Amino acid sequence: MNINKIKAIEIELYNIPLAEVLSDAKHGDHTHFELILSRVTCEDGAQGVGYTYTGGKGGRAIYSLLHDEMRPLLTGKDASQIDEIWDKLQWEYHYVGRGGILSFAISAMDIALWDIKCKRLGQPLWQVAGGASNKTNCYAGGIDLNFSEEKLLNNIQGYLDRGFEAVKIKVGKEDYLEDVSRVAAVRKTIGPDRVFMVDANYSLSVDEAIRFGNAIEQYNITWFEEPTIPDNYLGFGEISEAINIPLAMGENLHTFHEFEYAVAQAKLGYLQPDASNIGGITGFLQVADLAAKHNLPLCSHGMHELHVSLLASQPHSGYLEVHSFPIDEYTHYPIKIDENGYAVAPDVPGTGVVFDDALLAPHLVKKS
Amino acid sequence: MNINKIKAIEIELYNIPLAEVLSDAKHGDHTHFELILSRVTCEDGAQGVGYTYTGGKGGRAIYSLLHDEMRPLLTGKDASQIDEIWDKLQWEYHYVGRGGILSFAISAMDIALWDIKCKRLGQPLWQVAGGASNKTNCYAGGIDLNFSEEKLLNNIQGYLDRGFEAVKIKVGKEDYLEDVSRVAAVRKTIGPDRVFMVDANYSLSVDEAIRFGNAIEQYNITWFEEPTIPDNYLGFGEISEAINIPLAMGENLHTFHEFEYAVAQAKLGYLQPDASNIGGITGFLQVADLAAKHNLPLCSHGMHELHVSLLASQPHSGYLEVHSFPIDEYTHYPIKIDENGYAVAPDVPGTGVVFDDALLAPHLVKKS
Repeated sequence: MNINKIKAIEIELYNIPLAEVLSDAKHGDHTHFELILSRVTCEDGAQGVGYTYTGGKGGRAIYSLLHDEMRPLLTGKDASQIDEIWDKLQWEYHYVGRGGILSFAISAMDIALWDIKCKRLGQPLWQVAGGASNKTNCYAGGIDLNFSEEKLLNNIQGYLDRGFEAVKIKVGKEDYLEDVSRVAAVRKTIGPDRVFMVDANYSLSVDEAIRFGNAIEQYNITWFEEPTIPDNYLGFGEISEAINIPLAMGENLHTFHEFEYAVAQAKLGYLQPDASNIGGITGFLQVADLAAKHNLPLCSHGMHELHVSLLASQPHSGYLEVHSFPIDEYTHYPIKIDENGYAVAPDVPGTGVVFDDALLAPHLVKKS
Repeated sequence: MNINKIKAIEIELYNIPLAEVLSDAKHGDHTHFELILSRVTCEDGAQGVGYTYTGGKGGRAIYSLLHDEMRPLLTGKDASQIDEIWDKLQWEYHYVGRGGILSFAISAMDIALWDIKCKRLGQPLWQVAGGASNKTNCYAGGIDLNFSEEKLLNNIQGYLDRGFEAVKIKVGKEDYLEDVSRVAAVRKTIGPDRVFMVDANYSLSVDEAIRFGNAIEQYNITWFEEPTIPDNYLGFGEISEAINIPLAMGENLHTFHEFEYAVAQAKLGYLQPDASNIGGITGFLQVADLAAKHNLPLCSHGMHELHVSLLASQPHSGYLEVHSFPIDEYTHYPIKIDENGYAVAPDVPGTGVVFDDALLAPHLVKKS
């Protein structure tokens, strides 16, 4: 018997309500996030759980790819052949792929296989993926463009109360001077020394981004995230030349090639891959290597309960985003911030993301 | 009453067997193609039909996006607001989009709206989309890498017998000298004057492509299609510099931005968008404008029963691909080649693609 032979794959789709409506400049209001789980079971009963998520749209198509196509394709395959499976999925669906929904589906499968791999090794992900450390710098990433200034500042104060030493806010108001005023107010609230980033969710033109970047330079901004559309690498490069704040991007780059172009042309200061949409842990670590080669700090977007282990594992880790979609509240190891503001990776065999099925159950949409 | 208000949208998925197995270098064997239809009905009963297709994988996820998400989103909207709907779909699903499966789904919706638009104008698509002509140069595009040389030549002879004056074959055999020999044999079969292209389906490295391009230069090749992976724009540029055959690509570029990068960096001789995966007729015409701006002939990939009207409509049309997936055999206006080898666009109000429901019915997988 090959214990690694995949015996069963189960796919689950959840639609999880947010405690309050969260908005950014381009995606608009978020009322829910979608969570898609892939549970892979081997011949010997070993099980791995992978997942991906969306801001509320497209989850059913991801479920379909996983359930209708990848499930039959991978059943019977060797779960330990992670790279081979990753390649197979990329080429098998290449005609409808090269990013987009395919990248989300591959991510969920890949993370499940890594979970099995780490469990078989009896090691936590932070060790298997690199082992540089078990903790990482982090920041609280607000989705707060719809918050009044008062509510914004209360929200920031909440982050400080939870122990965060770094925060990020959304920008992209119709009147950019309002954004400038919110940035000034947040800087005043957090004091001069804490780390502070802004994120425009690609809502600005190149000229608008330059104007805004110059207007907020005085507030000591660590990075300006997605000032303009992610496709416009050369536009990013122009902005970077014209302002004194490093640029960051990654959540919308869904193939390694897109990261290569971004690194070559967008003059970024930070890379922010998301293992839920760059092809799982395999894809994330490819981008980690690219970042190392170009001396760029590796950051992350979303799913902090997983990324905490991946960033901790890398010597060139930058800042973990502790995202406003609280996936970790539905797991047994929610994010832990230590007394110095570091995020600490779970020390259990596997990815460290163990879902609490009872908490998820009320939000189930469909499963195989 | 707003007659243009969308009253109903029906989605259908078909899995249609090919008469024989067709192979290329990277997608492997094709036994079926998937066809996904979107039927949009307005308040006054006007109906438009749009569609997209795949090489046999991913169709259910496209169906899901159309059926589960776009159908409720667009019901009640104004079908005449084609650009606004196109933009809305791109931004609504941007986080899981920027190409991939989203582009296929948008295409099906967009083509349905254009069908309605042309019908309301009482004009055929070739007129509404530009009106330059009602016919275009064309070629027969074989998917024939698995054919023996004898069968390959018989197949080519079949194209000539049907009136084609231009042909394309697949290349990418393990031993490139076998490809060279097949190219030589086809050139001998078609005579010195007919137009002849080759397509590697991105299976070669840059060096392999250069070696092969130089080896076949003597056979007067009109273009060398997708020598290497579509993501490697600069690699295309290198190949283009090193050989004397123009390069072509497009079927794997699923956003306008990807075409912009390809035009800027890949040194192409021909652009080959596919309305089924570049965002429908709206997306196709954006690429047509880009091609015109850069003095590049506009060609096409796949779904010739629709593209015949789009290429005919443009003054800078190059060659229509008459593709080996015979979608048109399931329509009332299959492709028509005139006595001079031109493909002639249907002269009926609408896109000219009218499916024969009785022929499709046996292949239905699911519908709303």
